[in-house]
Amino acid sequence: MDTWMRFMSSDGGVVFGRVEGGYLHEYASLDHPVPTGAVLPMRTLTPLAPCAPGKIVALWNNYHALAAKLDKPVPSHPLFLLKPAASVIGTGEAIRRPPGYAGKIVYEGELGIVIGRRCRNASVDEAAAAIFGYTLVNDVTAADLLNENPHFPQWTRAKGFDTFCCLGPAIVSGFDWRQARLVTLLDGVERQNYPLDDMVFSPQQQVSLLSQDLTLEAGDVIACGTSVGVGSIKDGATVSVSIDGIGTLSNTLVTTAAADLHHLAPQTVAAT
Amino acid sequence: MDTWMRFMSSDGGVVFGRVEGGYLHEYASLDHPVPTGAVLPMRTLTPLAPCAPGKIVALWNNYHALAAKLDKPVPSHPLFLLKPAASVIGTGEAIRRPPGYAGKIVYEGELGIVIGRRCRNASVDEAAAAIFGYTLVNDVTAADLLNENPHFPQWTRAKGFDTFCCLGPAIVSGFDWRQARLVTLLDGVERQNYPLDDMVFSPQQQVSLLSQDLTLEAGDVIACGTSVGVGSIKDGATVSVSIDGIGTLSNTLVTTAAADLHHLAPQTVAAT
Repeated sequence: MDTWMRFMSSDGGVVFGRVEGGYLHEYASLDHPVPTGAVLPMRTLTPLAPCAPGKIVALWNNYHALAAKLDKPVPSHPLFLLKPAASVIGTGEAIRRPPGYAGKIVYEGELGIVIGRRCRNASVDEAAAAIFGYTLVNDVTAADLLNENPHFPQWTRAKGFDTFCCLGPAIVSGFDWRQARLVTLLDGVERQNYPLDDMVFSPQQQVSLLSQDLTLEAGDVIACGTSVGVGSIKDGATVSVSIDGIGTLSNTLVTTAAADLHHLAPQTVAAT
Repeated sequence: MDTWMRFMSSDGGVVFGRVEGGYLHEYASLDHPVPTGAVLPMRTLTPLAPCAPGKIVALWNNYHALAAKLDKPVPSHPLFLLKPAASVIGTGEAIRRPPGYAGKIVYEGELGIVIGRRCRNASVDEAAAAIFGYTLVNDVTAADLLNENPHFPQWTRAKGFDTFCCLGPAIVSGFDWRQARLVTLLDGVERQNYPLDDMVFSPQQQVSLLSQDLTLEAGDVIACGTSVGVGSIKDGATVSVSIDGIGTLSNTLVTTAAADLHHLAPQTVAAT
């Protein structure tokens, strides 16, 4: 097992590398993991999300326990939506309530798969080889938007706001997800504690099947879906998602300053 | 009005610029449109999609005529999904039938908005200024997947396959969409012919409202939704989408060679 992180250095540059002791051994990049020779003391660096995905594939209904609770059949193919790149934040960064949205905001603690190389129509074995490692995801949702329109479920809108994809703190390669549990705390109180081996589609099956639907690129993240215990986050509350061996991803929901609201004048609907 | 295109040059490089006569006046990039001084004869170049979007925001139910035909109310906020970057092809490139999918594949001729600069919580005026220009989109859909699972409409999967976002042939800046009609031909037979001023949300309203949901980046494309006349494409058929003043986007649906099918061995569903 190796632990990989990404930081902003004091000169504003981005460094990626392997963590050893309190030091970051810099590597060229995630898809070209060759040491540069630089070794940086981590205390001088500001943590970022551990990768910069071009897209985040987020699964729905991928745990048997949640399917049973929702009384939905287990799917025969991964059910997914895309969260955009700009939704990503790292541990310690604030989840921002969207301007003008006063409704419920929900956390979902999830295992994240980080893709290491381009992947298209991959067999399960090829898929396993294309996985760089695992991270943690808090797949945040503006829950009241999801079914606001009865004719079109707004998955991407509800889950795609800036700061709604918390990622980190690290990527762990060679991690054995089968033995692990995911725990989510809301202001220190346990809300989720579920075994990853209850997944419907294993990580390598997800990568293989999703790669038949779209091309996965190095750095892309698959959020494996959540299980039971999802709930809403009050403004000011902190969500901490943990898996032993990967670490803890911690983010606080903040309201947008009134100063950000000045553009929200009523919009007319008619076009012409 | 200026016409902008992107090409692959004979050395494999990508060039972007303004078209004048048979020549491409090269510019640094779409978000930094400064002439490089190079002027290239277009006959030596291979056309590409006119931009390389990080994401494509695709609208549903954005024309009054289509809403009336579907008997759905007009939405009060744009309804959208994301198509991934790898789904983009240019004019003349083949739409590839997904391996293992034998169902209906549908064309949708659409106006495309190309974003020129990063855009977040933009007013309608700021949104108008953030539009680089307009292009054409054929928003291809594997229609039988959309409602394959009764519990989760698979918009992204059905519309996200590689080659399912035809873009081009050019971006036209300063284009007056209000006076224009979009025409779609299937193997030379007219199937769509609708006025763009029947849109529910105008391009500047779309950019403004969408920028409250997600950050739009330079080069991103908004597919404005289609109107009536959508239909299925038989293997080997050619779809041509045209708007006077922008040009014609032409793509043929081809079946994937049997050689590409070797990875499609049955997948098991159980994870552990």
